[in-house]
Amino acid sequence: MKVEKDRLNQLKRDAIQGFIKYIGMKAVSMSPGKFTTRLKLEKRHLQQDGFAHAGLVAAMADHTAGYASFSLVPADRRILTMEYKISYFRPAAGDYLECRGHVIKSGRQVLFTEADVYSVKGGEKTLVARAMHTMTAVPVDKMPKA
Amino acid sequence: MKVEKDRLNQLKRDAIQGFIKYIGMKAVSMSPGKFTTRLKLEKRHLQQDGFAHAGLVAAMADHTAGYASFSLVPADRRILTMEYKISYFRPAAGDYLECRGHVIKSGRQVLFTEADVYSVKGGEKTLVARAMHTMTAVPVDKMPKA
Amino acid sequence: MKVEKDRLNQLKRDAIQGFIKYIGMKAVSMSPGKFTTRLKLEKRHLQQDGFAHAGLVAAMADHTAGYASFSLVPADRRILTMEYKISYFRPAAGDYLECRGHVIKSGRQVLFTEADVYSVKGGEKTLVARAMHTMTAVPVDKMPKA
Amino acid sequence: MKVEKDRLNQLKRDAIQGFIKYIGMKAVSMSPGKFTTRLKLEKRHLQQDGFAHAGLVAAMADHTAGYASFSLVPADRRILTMEYKISYFRPAAGDYLECRGHVIKSGRQVLFTEADVYSVKGGEKTLVARAMHTMTAVPVDKMPKA
Repeated sequence: MKVEKDRLNQLKRDAIQGFIKYIGMKAVSMSPGKFTTRLKLEKRHLQQDGFAHAGLVAAMADHTAGYASFSLVPADRRILTMEYKISYFRPAAGDYLECRGHVIKSGRQVLFTEADVYSVKGGEKTLVARAMHTMTAVPVDKMPKA
Repeated sequence: MKVEKDRLNQLKRDAIQGFIKYIGMKAVSMSPGKFTTRLKLEKRHLQQDGFAHAGLVAAMADHTAGYASFSLVPADRRILTMEYKISYFRPAAGDYLECRGHVIKSGRQVLFTEADVYSVKGGEKTLVARAMHTMTAVPVDKMPKA
Repeated sequence: MKVEKDRLNQLKRDAIQGFIKYIGMKAVSMSPGKFTTRLKLEKRHLQQDGFAHAGLVAAMADHTAGYASFSLVPADRRILTMEYKISYFRPAAGDYLECRGHVIKSGRQVLFTEADVYSVKGGEKTLVARAMHTMTAVPVDKMPKA
Repeated sequence: MKVEKDRLNQLKRDAIQGFIKYIGMKAVSMSPGKFTTRLKLEKRHLQQDGFAHAGLVAAMADHTAGYASFSLVPADRRILTMEYKISYFRPAAGDYLECRGHVIKSGRQVLFTEADVYSVKGGEKTLVARAMHTMTAVPVDKMPKA
């Protein structure tokens, strides 16, 4: 599927707003079906033992996979997460987190995605979590009201 | 299992720190194997369509189930999330979110938990998501270093 | 939603065919959004340590939740499993397995379901696994070809 | 980790017994942390619409990932499935199914695995499902009794 460069740039900007902006995520790069994000780890991101909170790691995976999905659907569709599973291979700590999301299987209404989260410390990158999501693409005029 | 009241009070206080405090979660009540939390929905919690971000909902479920687990393990053990799955029955909006977590099956090293997240608007409560987690209880002296 | 008794009886019969018949599952009872099944444990169902194979337990949960979903959709729709997660609380053994599936949230195209699997030995029933599924209801004329 | 060739050959043989033999799975190849299996699709494997039953696909993924795990643990440990999630990208049909399982992260007590299931028809291979599991390695003398 051909995706306009303008559309990708707009999505990359739109990706960072609301909760995602609040927690400090940054967009790194977007291509059709793929999105990469980063988050500089600060004290406000940690849980009781000094690791990045599992909820933060999952939010990053969810959002990165969500906008990877956005890049493959028409502009009049919105993406909502139906469900996901995330496995934590090890507790996350370091300078920042990096997340790479991609669409595994794209359909008109349903997209299956995957996202890997890495912790980066002094240039060393370690895979800390992997998530698999089911996303749904909803026409704007059928979106529920907030 | 008998759990000291002091221990529960301490856990209820400890639960709200770091990332969880930053996003605005509050502890409501804790009993052995159960924990209830709340979060007043504000603009900083929303995603691009005005709903509570799926990542926020999941963080709430994860943390609430995590401290429900803490309440059943000895004081020299820490809880880490190994994995979870969350299903979103509908987008979440309203005045606040409420989460109820409980332990389904408790073991020495592994605890299976569940957490339901409700949106509350004008007194009406709606189930918006359910999560199932696998938690691990790690002796303090075997915890990885952050 | 009112479901005809004839429709439920027909679904209950249809439920036991192909792979499901081959592995020995039996229909116990069906009501709108709910289905209960049983399977007498035999040697052919076991894994290398003498427990019911995890794959058998999951097949039972999947199929039981699938037909619980069938009971809530129009007769011109078919049910396909999009995804599920299953947690095994303990290895399963005993005289037979019982599975109770129900629909948590029913939509026109997507249904969220849950299924609990119990092992039964000498009248004692033990919860061995719980699964959460996302089912999709596909109009007959849009079904992919086998 | 060095794994003896004899051990791998023995595991490859042991893999096909009980339920797995009954449903017709065959071992193709095993190397440390990896296992590949196949299953010739027959009428007894199908669900109501003529596709391979989702439960069959999941059993294949679970077992293949389980024995991939076996290949990385000492001979006095047994593998049990704690939980998994499986996503079905499309209904499965064709001449046979092939499953490739591998260990993503190996620990002393917990192993995270992934398994891809392909349908093969006339030489064309299509990815139909992906599963992520959490396996536990239990010392023989601590195994529960069947």
